[in-house]
Order: sequence, then C-alpha cells, then structure tokens
Amino acid sequence: MIIAVDVMSGDNTPEEIAKGALNAAKDFGINIVLIGDKDAVSRYEDKENGISVVTSTQVVTMEDDPLSAIKEKEDSSLAVGVNLVRMGKADALVSPGNTGALLSAASIRLRRVKGIRRAAIGTVVPLDKPFIMVDAGANIDVLAENLCQFAFMGALYAEKVLGVKKPRVALLSNGTEQTKGLPVTKEAYAVLKDTELNFIGNVESRELPFGCCDVLVCDGFTGNIALKLIEGMGKFMSQTIKSIFKQNIFTKLAYLPCKNSIKKLRKKMDSRQTGGAPLLGVAKPVIKAHGNSDALGIYNAIRLAKTYTESGIIKEFEKKFGRVNGDGTEE
Amino acid sequence: MIIAVDVMSGDNTPEEIAKGALNAAKDFGINIVLIGDKDAVSRYEDKENGISVVTSTQVVTMEDDPLSAIKEKEDSSLAVGVNLVRMGKADALVSPGNTGALLSAASIRLRRVKGIRRAAIGTVVPLDKPFIMVDAGANIDVLAENLCQFAFMGALYAEKVLGVKKPRVALLSNGTEQTKGLPVTKEAYAVLKDTELNFIGNVESRELPFGCCDVLVCDGFTGNIALKLIEGMGKFMSQTIKSIFKQNIFTKLAYLPCKNSIKKLRKKMDSRQTGGAPLLGVAKPVIKAHGNSDALGIYNAIRLAKTYTESGIIKEFEKKFGRVNGDGTEE
Repeated sequence: MIIAVDVMSGDNTPEEIAKGALNAAKDFGINIVLIGDKDAVSRYEDKENGISVVTSTQVVTMEDDPLSAIKEKEDSSLAVGVNLVRMGKADALVSPGNTGALLSAASIRLRRVKGIRRAAIGTVVPLDKPFIMVDAGANIDVLAENLCQFAFMGALYAEKVLGVKKPRVALLSNGTEQTKGLPVTKEAYAVLKDTELNFIGNVESRELPFGCCDVLVCDGFTGNIALKLIEGMGKFMSQTIKSIFKQNIFTKLAYLPCKNSIKKLRKKMDSRQTGGAPLLGVAKPVIKAHGNSDALGIYNAIRLAKTYTESGIIKEFEKKFGRVNGDGTEE
Repeated sequence: MIIAVDVMSGDNTPEEIAKGALNAAKDFGINIVLIGDKDAVSRYEDKENGISVVTSTQVVTMEDDPLSAIKEKEDSSLAVGVNLVRMGKADALVSPGNTGALLSAASIRLRRVKGIRRAAIGTVVPLDKPFIMVDAGANIDVLAENLCQFAFMGALYAEKVLGVKKPRVALLSNGTEQTKGLPVTKEAYAVLKDTELNFIGNVESRELPFGCCDVLVCDGFTGNIALKLIEGMGKFMSQTIKSIFKQNIFTKLAYLPCKNSIKKLRKKMDSRQTGGAPLLGVAKPVIKAHGNSDALGIYNAIRLAKTYTESGIIKEFEKKFGRVNGDGTEE
C-alpha cells in the first residue's frame, strides 16, 4: 500500500509531518510518498525503506479560496497529492491542508461515489464514548437529502470500520422532539424515521459526552462548532485539572495516586489519537488531518488512511449509492 | 418591586419553584406573585411577607407549539404571568416554561422595544471567564440585521448590567477569517466592523472556554447547541474528576487537599448560579429560567429579574433602537 502525504500544508511543515510519516512507514509496513518543495522532501528519500518523494512548487494556504486555489495552484502539494491518487500512483492521500480546497480538489478530480451528492467529513469525536460526526465541517449549507446521505455513510462507517453493530443514528438538534430543529433537520427527521437505519431521532448537544449515539448527523457549520467546542472544553478540562493539583505541596502530592487515570483521560480526549478524518463519499481514500497536526497526529492519520483503504468501505458506498462508471466518470 | 413567578412550568413544579421564590422574597426584600393551580399555590399565600397568589387553570407544556399554546391556553400560568406584567401588576416575570411560547407571548403581549426586530435570549455562559451569548435559543433562523441587533443588545447588557468596559463583541463562526461562516455571518461581519462596537471579528468555539470575547453573537440554533454542549461538557468534567478520586483509598485521600478548589470550580460552572436569561428586546423584564430549575435556580433567576429590572437596561435599548409609543403600541 502506498500512501501520499502532503508535507507542505498545515501548521507544522515540513519536519513534523515528515517525521510522523517516516514513523508510520516503519511501523505499519507501508510505502510513503512525501510531497513538497524539493528542499523540504528530497533529504527524506529512502527507497529501500519505502520512502519516495514527489516535488511540488506551490502551497495552498488556509486563507486561499478553495476553488481559486485549485485552479491557480496546479502544482501545490495538495493538488499534486490528489493527482497521485487519481493516477493510481498512491492508494490514499493524507493532507493537513485547507479543508475546502482538499474537499473541492478531491470531489472534482477523484469524483464522488455515484449517487452521493456531497462528500462530508466523518470525524470520530474523542470522548469517553466516541461517536462519528458527519459532517464535521465540509458543507456549510445542506439540504435534507444531504443529511440523509450523511446518515447512511456514517452508519456504514460505524458498522464496517468501527465495528459497531446496529449503530444508533441521531440528528443534532436544539431539542429531542421531532418538531425541533432547522427546517432541514425536521425534513431529514421525517425521511430518516422510515428508513432501515437504527434512527433514534434528535439528540441535544448536552448528551454528546455521555454516549447518546454512534452516528451524529448535522450540517458542517453546526458540526464544526460542536467539534471545536468539545476540543476546547477538553483542553479547558485538562488545564483545570492541572491547576487543581498545582496549588501547593499537598495537592502536588495528591497528584501521584491520580496520575495514571489523568494520563489515560488525556490520551482518550487527545484529537491527535484519531489523527484525521476521511472525506466520506469521495471515490478514493482521502484523509483530512488536523491543520495543527504534529508527528503523532500525522502518524495516526496515516494509520487511519490504511484502515480506511483496507476496510473496503468505499465499495460499500458504491453498493449502497450506485457505481462510478468504468472510466471514472459519473453517469 | 413585584416579581411574578410561574410555578406550573418546567420539570420541578410546583414545590421547588415555590421554595426558590419564597427564599428570594425573604433575601431580596421583594414581593412575589406565585401563579399556578389553586391547589398548588394557595397554601403559600402570606401577604404579610409579600407573597400573594394568582390562580391559573392551564399549563403550557414543552411539547406545545408556541403559537397555538398562546391562542388556546389563555389561562395558562405562563400567559397569566405575561398578562400580570402587561397590566402593571408585576414588574417582571420569571418562568421556566416553553421557550418558544414564552418568547411569543412576551413579544406579542408586552411588545418589543421599538426598532428591535426580534427578541433574543441573552445567557451569561457559566465558564471560568463568563461571556454573554445572544441568541441562546430564541430564533432558529435569523437575518444579518437580527445578528447585528443582538450584538448591540449584548454589548449594552455587558456594559450596563455586567459592568464590562468596552465589551469585545464577536460572531461565532467556523473560522476566524472574515470569509468564514454562514451567509448571514459574513453579512453581519461586514456591517459590524464599521459600527462603534468593539467588534473583534469571528471567534471559533474552541476559544470560548478561554475568555476570547465578552459578547458572543449567533443564531439561536447554533447558540443553543453551543450552550448545551458547554453544560454537558461541564457535567462530564465534573463526573470525570469525581471518578478520578473515587478509585481507591489513596485517591480518596488525595481528594482532601483538592476539595475546595473542586467545589469552587463546580459552583462556577453550575448553570443554576445564573438561574436564567432575559428576553432581550422585549419591552418589559421577562426572565426565562432553565426548564430543569430547582429552588436554587429559581432563586437566582429571581435575583437576575431584580437586577435586570433595576438596571434600566430596557430604557437603554429604547434610547438606542427607538421608543415604544406612549400607549404601548409600536409606531
């Protein structure tokens, strides 16, 4: 398996990303293609150990407008990465770059699975009882039809990749009653309740930390707000616990017997442990890594790319939603 | 000052609500009118100590459709409460009832301050560094104009009621750049940046626990999701800290030196400490208490009703946005 890694995007370019990729190559027995400026990547080339490099000359920044970035930065690391997957020179792409640009490039050049109207980010949310959120930030405005497809993709992902039987699918809303929510939420509710999904209705955000569902369906704006708030509150929690123990000599001593469980908790809620999220609905495996990924984050994003590719989930999507024609075009 | 309290709405009717109201009457030197079924309220009547009762025969439930509830339940505790304020028999109303119904009844019967297009819930969010969120759940879909009015109301509230000088006003969005957000977010950004407000642009939800702004502006759907998630994560945090110390005899001993700061933290993040939130923009003081308010929550909601009424903030809104005509009608 060959996984392409965009080392020029995100906050920690290129060393941290390359380091994570090299570790992943060693541990997971896969080949890696590092994509980036010649100066940045050539020194890592090591064909014996499965590390090759492809150079690029441009970088898509977080400020770039997605569509113009794809048109105007043909030789960006992100675009080159997408093209490697398109040409079959890599099985999957991992990029910590501009979400909108990655989504647009992937949707346009790799196409979506036939029948899927919008690709979505499917993030496993790092909480005590994790769940998959679809969409975590790709689609700012959605139709009810999109939400329903997100529900089906999320449920398939939970079942086939995460191994959850009969995953409980819920809509994120401002109340549990069917009458609550945005107009699209209500419309999607009416459709989802009559499908074969294990649809449990609306859930309120206050229940999210307590394992209220396995698949959480929402538009990308709301999802992004909820996801980042969980991250922020996790960080706040971690800092608060630290400050409780840092007060004086007695509290410092009190830390010792609690140390292990605090470390376990911190690890569980560390978004670097997931590393990234697949673009569900794109016809080839593309993993969006966190923009602030360090070596550990990239390492785990590559692990996810491997699992995602091996799981055959894209074939499941094709079975469910339709088929990409033999030549890669949609019907 | 006379504060009307709806004891029939919410999860803890009527005893807890009445108990909170009686305590508030004693501590704050105010008069209370308890509104509810005869059986529920008559035993609390105590004119010497400023407790009077008004009976009602109906209850608006959480499931009721707001507009039909107002039309069909003329004699509900909620509607009677609104009418008491309308007729000048009470200075303010506190109700833990159906948000939509309370908002509709208040907007229609008490009217909005002239010039204000939509009333909004202004909640002080219980975090280490609190901020006021407008709108926390009243308006599911909004126009940019509404968001801008929420910003002005929130800023006035922060300044005049919370005592924050030059409050930092921000829009909740999925990125800090001006290009990020829902179409209404972007439109509101363009308007707000040229006002006299201390507008600091967009903030991401992950920064909310760290004092990134004093006034957070958003639509009621997003606000509601964010608010309840903060509450849920707070509860999760509290449970997690508890479980860390409950493991064995050593961790139980370790709890002792940490006890005080944990209690302080729990109190700070307890939504009952705020008790409720005013319906900003309504021409008379109405406080929406939490649906699950207990005696302490109601007690604090009544304190807020008193502060809100005394602050003269509604006069400030009138100065800023226009004036209700002498006879109570809009122009």
